[in-house]
Amino acid sequence: MKVAVIGLGRMGRAIAGRLLVAGAEVTVHNRTPGAEGELIEAGARAAESVAAAAGSSEIVLTLLSDDTALEAVATGGLCSALQPGAIHAAMGTHGVAAVAALAERHAAAGQRFVAAPVLGRPQAAADGQLGIIVGGAPDAVRACAPLFELIGQRVFDAGGDPQSAAAVKLANGFVLACAIEALAESFSMIRRFAVDPELFREVLTGGLFPGPAHAIYSRLMVDESYDEPGFTTALGLKDVQLALAAADRCALPLPSVGVVRDRLLGAIAHGDADRDWAVLAREQARAAALE
Amino acid sequence: MKVAVIGLGRMGRAIAGRLLVAGAEVTVHNRTPGAEGELIEAGARAAESVAAAAGSSEIVLTLLSDDTALEAVATGGLCSALQPGAIHAAMGTHGVAAVAALAERHAAAGQRFVAAPVLGRPQAAADGQLGIIVGGAPDAVRACAPLFELIGQRVFDAGGDPQSAAAVKLANGFVLACAIEALAESFSMIRRFAVDPELFREVLTGGLFPGPAHAIYSRLMVDESYDEPGFTTALGLKDVQLALAAADRCALPLPSVGVVRDRLLGAIAHGDADRDWAVLAREQARAAALE
Amino acid sequence: MKVAVIGLGRMGRAIAGRLLVAGAEVTVHNRTPGAEGELIEAGARAAESVAAAAGSSEIVLTLLSDDTALEAVATGGLCSALQPGAIHAAMGTHGVAAVAALAERHAAAGQRFVAAPVLGRPQAAADGQLGIIVGGAPDAVRACAPLFELIGQRVFDAGGDPQSAAAVKLANGFVLACAIEALAESFSMIRRFAVDPELFREVLTGGLFPGPAHAIYSRLMVDESYDEPGFTTALGLKDVQLALAAADRCALPLPSVGVVRDRLLGAIAHGDADRDWAVLAREQARAAALE
Amino acid sequence: MKVAVIGLGRMGRAIAGRLLVAGAEVTVHNRTPGAEGELIEAGARAAESVAAAAGSSEIVLTLLSDDTALEAVATGGLCSALQPGAIHAAMGTHGVAAVAALAERHAAAGQRFVAAPVLGRPQAAADGQLGIIVGGAPDAVRACAPLFELIGQRVFDAGGDPQSAAAVKLANGFVLACAIEALAESFSMIRRFAVDPELFREVLTGGLFPGPAHAIYSRLMVDESYDEPGFTTALGLKDVQLALAAADRCALPLPSVGVVRDRLLGAIAHGDADRDWAVLAREQARAAALE
Repeated sequence: MKVAVIGLGRMGRAIAGRLLVAGAEVTVHNRTPGAEGELIEAGARAAESVAAAAGSSEIVLTLLSDDTALEAVATGGLCSALQPGAIHAAMGTHGVAAVAALAERHAAAGQRFVAAPVLGRPQAAADGQLGIIVGGAPDAVRACAPLFELIGQRVFDAGGDPQSAAAVKLANGFVLACAIEALAESFSMIRRFAVDPELFREVLTGGLFPGPAHAIYSRLMVDESYDEPGFTTALGLKDVQLALAAADRCALPLPSVGVVRDRLLGAIAHGDADRDWAVLAREQARAAALE
Repeated sequence: MKVAVIGLGRMGRAIAGRLLVAGAEVTVHNRTPGAEGELIEAGARAAESVAAAAGSSEIVLTLLSDDTALEAVATGGLCSALQPGAIHAAMGTHGVAAVAALAERHAAAGQRFVAAPVLGRPQAAADGQLGIIVGGAPDAVRACAPLFELIGQRVFDAGGDPQSAAAVKLANGFVLACAIEALAESFSMIRRFAVDPELFREVLTGGLFPGPAHAIYSRLMVDESYDEPGFTTALGLKDVQLALAAADRCALPLPSVGVVRDRLLGAIAHGDADRDWAVLAREQARAAALE
Repeated sequence: MKVAVIGLGRMGRAIAGRLLVAGAEVTVHNRTPGAEGELIEAGARAAESVAAAAGSSEIVLTLLSDDTALEAVATGGLCSALQPGAIHAAMGTHGVAAVAALAERHAAAGQRFVAAPVLGRPQAAADGQLGIIVGGAPDAVRACAPLFELIGQRVFDAGGDPQSAAAVKLANGFVLACAIEALAESFSMIRRFAVDPELFREVLTGGLFPGPAHAIYSRLMVDESYDEPGFTTALGLKDVQLALAAADRCALPLPSVGVVRDRLLGAIAHGDADRDWAVLAREQARAAALE
Repeated sequence: MKVAVIGLGRMGRAIAGRLLVAGAEVTVHNRTPGAEGELIEAGARAAESVAAAAGSSEIVLTLLSDDTALEAVATGGLCSALQPGAIHAAMGTHGVAAVAALAERHAAAGQRFVAAPVLGRPQAAADGQLGIIVGGAPDAVRACAPLFELIGQRVFDAGGDPQSAAAVKLANGFVLACAIEALAESFSMIRRFAVDPELFREVLTGGLFPGPAHAIYSRLMVDESYDEPGFTTALGLKDVQLALAAADRCALPLPSVGVVRDRLLGAIAHGDADRDWAVLAREQARAAALE
């Protein structure tokens, strides 16, 4: 199968690399040249343009950082060059409006489209351990399945509408954001009562919250370790805004998400945009005059 | 060691039962008679009054449903009858103000006091699998240790101030409450986008949130199973109010907890006070015109 | 008519003074002696105890700072000494629970009770310009009417339940608190866009918001003048907490009031408890990294 | 002076009409034909396109319903046809991002741009009683002054940046939105305590809140009169979203505005998008199980 990967950030490179290891015929393209070096060594073909990458592929995977980039790629060659019947699988985290617009555009061109946002970090992609949430017409989802099985440990079928997959990704994301906010608030309370944060972390993770979300973020909060971000405050805000935009689109009040939004904005106002978003604990501490 | 257990609700009975199995000399008392039957069969002595139970024991465990009950027991014989040097361990979920007041009162009487709220359900107590968060003077904590090891799998030392243990319990509780609220909001979103709730649950629990909090409450929400409560909305509100009262006491903004408070009040207004507090998902659905 | 005024803070003194000017027979009492000097000169009789004041009066007005003080006065002589058929009019700002409890207690003793919280500052009382919100049995309200007309420009009849009058006072209070919070948020926004605060104030007060609430608080915010409090942050929190407690009592979500609560707590955490609660503008500015 | 008015909704027609009465030379254009009839009778010239209207005018006033319409007009002839040195005054309510982008575009073309959003209803425009908030370069503001004095009772100078004028309009708008929400919450509380809503309205408007915002919206809430909208819930949401987008742009937490956003979404979910946004009182009543 001829596959193109457009967008060679860390996730794009990891997915392309995994596909190459699995023997797929992979064309790669990045809007800013320079990211494709190792992939070419591993056997990828570099396309000079989005159109060149899209025109010669049965499935095009995009791994783009935001809706603006996705729109730029779509209108900058992808939609015009993709063959009828070929598939675009958008694997980034995108808003439901962008996904809906793109679905229409591809349908009008006789092309197929799935939203397939991923769960997990680039290393998981390299190891074939991602989760992939897929939404789109059943035939397109089936056509992508062999590919997704190469990179994903588990594929979640969100149904026939690509927007549904986007919504699942955003909802999963805001459950995490709310968990981080709740942790931030809880650590400020136990600090007020002079409790050892490590002790409190053990209560949480030794009991109701042993999973990675609480284990990872409570660790960062106990250590006040925010300067080597796994995921930044700015990116957190972007995802929360996509969730709120989805909520606007379907008239849905999300009060907890609104609280996180304000906390993220406060953190950014205080200069923490590029720190790990566990820094919400510090922002809450500021609000409580603990910093 | 002579132990009294005052307050024979489900947790009190489970703890007393566990102590009897372990061979402790246990006196029991409940404000409303009738709960002590099985415990007497198992070897407990029934005291006719709080004072009678307290006066003859080295350690008195109280398992009371709220601060009002704790205050009533404290002023209704416990503080007057407890021997100097004897220990009162309050194992219910109580507010920091009630705990602070009780600590002062016992100190004035030359008695010892620890707050020792528990984590887990009555069955965990019966199995010796509770978590116990202990706060109090080191000598008192040490004196209680053998007892706590009988009923608890793990003892968390919150430090020398009983209020600290109360705060840890309340903070752990509101992290849970916020998680339930975030789940409620997320399920309303994926319903709006026609996603199968079971699929979404798998995304959550198969990824970042495999622990019991998310597993249990997302299950109840998928099943819309609220009528056999493990923990009711009314009790949830009580705990959230205790957390907010602690926040008032130490001038701490807790915006996420405020959101949960309003959701709980809405659920109660809609008649769901005695349902499992997973019913917050239905209350959120009402707010979104999904019900 | 024989009237007692218990509680000689600024409002109590102003009301007693106004009654004396109008020729009423006034007995006064304050828990802490020393406040009654000028009133005695103006013709008041000083009672040595709550009971002495209450026992000899047809109507007892209490002007107490909070529910604790009201409870202390009620149980410290007022309820025991008041004659059957005599009236207690509680004119402070009190919670609905305290008012309900007091209503029951007076009814049990064959005494009459109205809640009659006031709107306006002490100078308005001295000038007979207060607003008075009255709740209680019609006969009691009628009996108080001549008195209230001396001190109030306008009497608002909230109906037969004293709690209703308390609720009106609290609701009016939180509409003000929310207005102050909204102003605080708006001033932070226009500061971000380099707008002259005085210009923005003119837009507000020259248009939709010419009334005293917005005129007074926007003036203080423009001038950043918080150190000569007309009403402190701490008192603002007290009133907001009473409103939230009333909401708890009747299962009512009040999300805007929850936001104000958190803002007030933040201001207090930052040391502004005793400043004018217009200082919420500074607290919002802190949250936005503008301070 | 040659003036064009583009956008002939109620406000555009009222402004154009006022200018014609004052003797100005007015060209009008609406994207959808048919709105210009009465204006032509009153002496206006109808332009067949945006470009035709813009190319022959010294000042172009746009009165457009949202940023999308403004963008469409700007790129659909306005920016290309406007003479160098001519002025575009955007008088609708627009977001700061749209205003900033338009300012750049006009500057690049050597044209002048001011943001001049209005305060007041169409009738106020017809009567020359509008408020106008102006932001832009001083020479452009000066050039517009004679025109603005014809239609506005008062011009507020927000400074040299058009974004500032937009921000003032949005901030004024959200202070109103928050006031409506606070009123909605307060009416639900007094309903719970069986208070006559009319009585409560008198307390508010007879005291701290006599101005039009509280007078108008409390009247609608007392009368539960939502079906002849002065301003709809959908438009309210649009303005609140613009305010939140401005807050995103400058990293500003606005928690009260977030609360209003959720309430508006809830109202829209319940089918009240096209009712007067005083219907937030009904939405709050739903949340409190009062409906």
